[in-house]
Amino acid sequence: MSTTLCGGHFINGQWMTSEGKPFQSINPQTGEKLPTVFHGANPEQIAQACESAQIAFSKTRQLPPTQIAQLLEQIATEIEAAGDELLQMASHESGLPVQPRLMGERARTCGQLRLFAALVKEGDWVDARIDRPDPARTPLPKPDVRSALEAIGPVVVFDASNFPLAFGACGGDTASALAAGNPVIIKGHTAHPGTNELVTQAVQKALEKCNLPASFFQLLQGSGSTVGSALVIDPRIKAVGFTGSLSGGRALFDLAAKRPDPIPVYAEMGSLNPLVILPKAIENKTTQIAEGLAGALTLGAGQFCTRPGLIFAANCAATDSLITQIAQKLAGQKFCMLTPGIRDHFNSIVEQFATINSVKVHVAPEKSGAAGTGAFLLETDVKTFLTSPALQEEAFGPSGLIVRFDSIHDLSSLFTLVKGTLTATIHHDAADDTVEVAAAFSQAAQIAGRVISNGYPTGVEVCHAMVHGGPYPATSHSGFTSVGTGAIRRFARPVCYQNLPDTLLPETLRDLNPRKIFRLVDGQYTQNHS
Amino acid sequence: MSTTLCGGHFINGQWMTSEGKPFQSINPQTGEKLPTVFHGANPEQIAQACESAQIAFSKTRQLPPTQIAQLLEQIATEIEAAGDELLQMASHESGLPVQPRLMGERARTCGQLRLFAALVKEGDWVDARIDRPDPARTPLPKPDVRSALEAIGPVVVFDASNFPLAFGACGGDTASALAAGNPVIIKGHTAHPGTNELVTQAVQKALEKCNLPASFFQLLQGSGSTVGSALVIDPRIKAVGFTGSLSGGRALFDLAAKRPDPIPVYAEMGSLNPLVILPKAIENKTTQIAEGLAGALTLGAGQFCTRPGLIFAANCAATDSLITQIAQKLAGQKFCMLTPGIRDHFNSIVEQFATINSVKVHVAPEKSGAAGTGAFLLETDVKTFLTSPALQEEAFGPSGLIVRFDSIHDLSSLFTLVKGTLTATIHHDAADDTVEVAAAFSQAAQIAGRVISNGYPTGVEVCHAMVHGGPYPATSHSGFTSVGTGAIRRFARPVCYQNLPDTLLPETLRDLNPRKIFRLVDGQYTQNHS
Repeated sequence: MSTTLCGGHFINGQWMTSEGKPFQSINPQTGEKLPTVFHGANPEQIAQACESAQIAFSKTRQLPPTQIAQLLEQIATEIEAAGDELLQMASHESGLPVQPRLMGERARTCGQLRLFAALVKEGDWVDARIDRPDPARTPLPKPDVRSALEAIGPVVVFDASNFPLAFGACGGDTASALAAGNPVIIKGHTAHPGTNELVTQAVQKALEKCNLPASFFQLLQGSGSTVGSALVIDPRIKAVGFTGSLSGGRALFDLAAKRPDPIPVYAEMGSLNPLVILPKAIENKTTQIAEGLAGALTLGAGQFCTRPGLIFAANCAATDSLITQIAQKLAGQKFCMLTPGIRDHFNSIVEQFATINSVKVHVAPEKSGAAGTGAFLLETDVKTFLTSPALQEEAFGPSGLIVRFDSIHDLSSLFTLVKGTLTATIHHDAADDTVEVAAAFSQAAQIAGRVISNGYPTGVEVCHAMVHGGPYPATSHSGFTSVGTGAIRRFARPVCYQNLPDTLLPETLRDLNPRKIFRLVDGQYTQNHS
Repeated sequence: MSTTLCGGHFINGQWMTSEGKPFQSINPQTGEKLPTVFHGANPEQIAQACESAQIAFSKTRQLPPTQIAQLLEQIATEIEAAGDELLQMASHESGLPVQPRLMGERARTCGQLRLFAALVKEGDWVDARIDRPDPARTPLPKPDVRSALEAIGPVVVFDASNFPLAFGACGGDTASALAAGNPVIIKGHTAHPGTNELVTQAVQKALEKCNLPASFFQLLQGSGSTVGSALVIDPRIKAVGFTGSLSGGRALFDLAAKRPDPIPVYAEMGSLNPLVILPKAIENKTTQIAEGLAGALTLGAGQFCTRPGLIFAANCAATDSLITQIAQKLAGQKFCMLTPGIRDHFNSIVEQFATINSVKVHVAPEKSGAAGTGAFLLETDVKTFLTSPALQEEAFGPSGLIVRFDSIHDLSSLFTLVKGTLTATIHHDAADDTVEVAAAFSQAAQIAGRVISNGYPTGVEVCHAMVHGGPYPATSHSGFTSVGTGAIRRFARPVCYQNLPDTLLPETLRDLNPRKIFRLVDGQYTQNHS
């Protein structure tokens, strides 16, 4: 194991330890504790981090985009330079394999840092708008009004257990918050503190090389209920990014809403991700769907926010065969989950499902080792699903619950019950009834952030058009995405300038358009001068 | 007076009365009750309106933009056709003069309806994004990912007391929510129920002429604490627009945050609107500023959310003269306020200001009549302002509090105390220190939604670049505006489509770009085909 860990927090450019509640990460493969002892940050350290972030903000909010882009690119370079040590640490702390998973996750992490670098260099994201004046207008002259998005202030990011790199200390939330010019304080997940320390070392090097304020990025280790809560209620914090459980995200949302000055908590809290298979798709693609679905249910040991754990399968001649084939693929598979606690929680929820009348168990393995489990496959009917609220809970792990439906009317009832979800998927075939296909897609769009045709939701492409979001309880605000370049919008606000001399305007809004960005001038998009 | 009022609610296309708590509007000029007796909507009516709105949503969410535009334009036409009767009613219920105020407000109301009609016809607002697929990419094929903004569902709009038309039943919140395709339920303000009934009659005609579902727009009369609260917690409601007091907005925000499924409340809750006058501006433009400021303090009897009630004036040779001139202009002016209650609240707050040690009273009139008052002008020093939280409360009415500051350091401290505000204004002169001018603008931008140079914040231009928003407590979410075309963003959410056949995509995202809108294709803005 690495000998470079200090077990501390990174505050205002310094590594410092504390005497708070001690904890160690656990290798879920072996159940052994990793050697470094970490401690929760104390209240003084939390306050110091918030104060430092606020001070840094006065500089970072007006950084030229080239400097922010350089930082994001340098962080990516340093994360890559952290090499095997980082990958090994992440693997030891998460049970996820280095190859291909963590290699791929690192590539995604660096890719999204570079995507945000490109976004801020290009600059169009600020949604610059200019309405030109008309001094001759009656009864009142029309003023010169211009607006663009600007940074909001210190942001707290809770890193997620299930993607120690891509949704970790320097994952998508952090990349998007930094890209907008906001200082970020990470509340490190207690399952992978060593990974967070190594990532933070990489960011530290990047900040030094780019000659930027060290408190642009800070790391506090500790639990959500103490360190996390204290950060969310600190008056210097202006927004929160979170990926995790519904109970955790809701607790932070509630804390932030009760502040004297409420702030937004952008919480992505997982979801049911219904996947519909229409009759002709089942009949004509039985084997193909069985294979794809078994893969999507178990990818990353089923620990994806987008795992399609709820399967609405039309009742047709091939449905039994489909279920049998999925069951055959799942039976006997072994998985190591992220933590013993996540494994225990997962198994207990699915085992509870299995006790409900009219729930048929196709595959139900035993626990094994420190964090080991297998894949579950259950089945029930429409009526049981509609009348059993317990079945509408997310089981975070490698499981699938199939609900067999007979009519499009039943499918509509099922959709109505799924309140808000990150994704909804429809498998259909050219031979399926086109009216029914269209109706299913229409209902899917009303409950989901992303609608998928004939595929699987588990891959969340990091791009401009991605929406990783959706109505509550998928997220705390359906107006935003936490993946893709649109994620930057969460950490910015529009600021408007009226009748300012050109020299006092931000560059984004000056007459000669020095950043050469697309601007909405008198309602028309243009890259020309105003 | 009009004889056309039924005193009822407009629910699912029908006018219906109720037996709830009776109320009548009061003519603030005379103190007399207007003849029509209204009643608060009962719980069944509230539920019926929410249910009707939800049913309407399945149709309105997919309306072609031309139909929505036609509706918005027809509403404007019908509001104009309501003619003098509407203007007279609004004047009787608000004390605001027909000419020029309500004539101007009606023009603004119809203007913003037509602006949103133009916006949805043009269609660019949906922020369409397309990332094209790459089946050959390794290790995984790149999917086809497309997203655009869509309607969210039934929206409740609380109309504001101070602009019975422009922020009323068919004001900016309603126009933007309808434009996005959302059914709207109005919680009518109890100060002008007759105005709301007449506006709703106009909308009813427009809905009929456009052959659209009647429950696209509904009106419920009654109090905020009963009818308003019940609407905000109804599970069918997906967002709330509000303009009013901090206490009222915060109460609704808190209710919505406590829902099992929290929804956004976009509350604009007024603000202090600091106006800074730098030394050379005072010296070189004394009379001009005195005149402008006296006008801005008293426009609409001071009942603008953007009234610059807090004036940070540099201490220089001309400051005494400036204050004297403002005082002379304010002294003896008489105003009729919107309601006796608003008048009483205003007078009691300002009179409390006057009791604070080191607060100097320049002008302090007596109450008169049912809702009559005069303009107040008070002055204090930096230390008193910084140490008197009571002085940081908004006094909604024709008053100004001048804080005289000696140094740029003092000004910085004053800015730091003003937490979040709709506007911040700087009066400066070419002879002012350029570093100090830039510092003032930088601080202004950090606390305000709109920053104004050498002008007054009271005119809120309805245009593309306007931001009527700002950090809490100016609004409940600084990421949005409630005036201008950007206001539509509050009532929409991005929906993403992955690998859908072209025929199943919304028109906004189809290959041939049938709506000819600007789209972000692979990160580049284009109006061409994808």
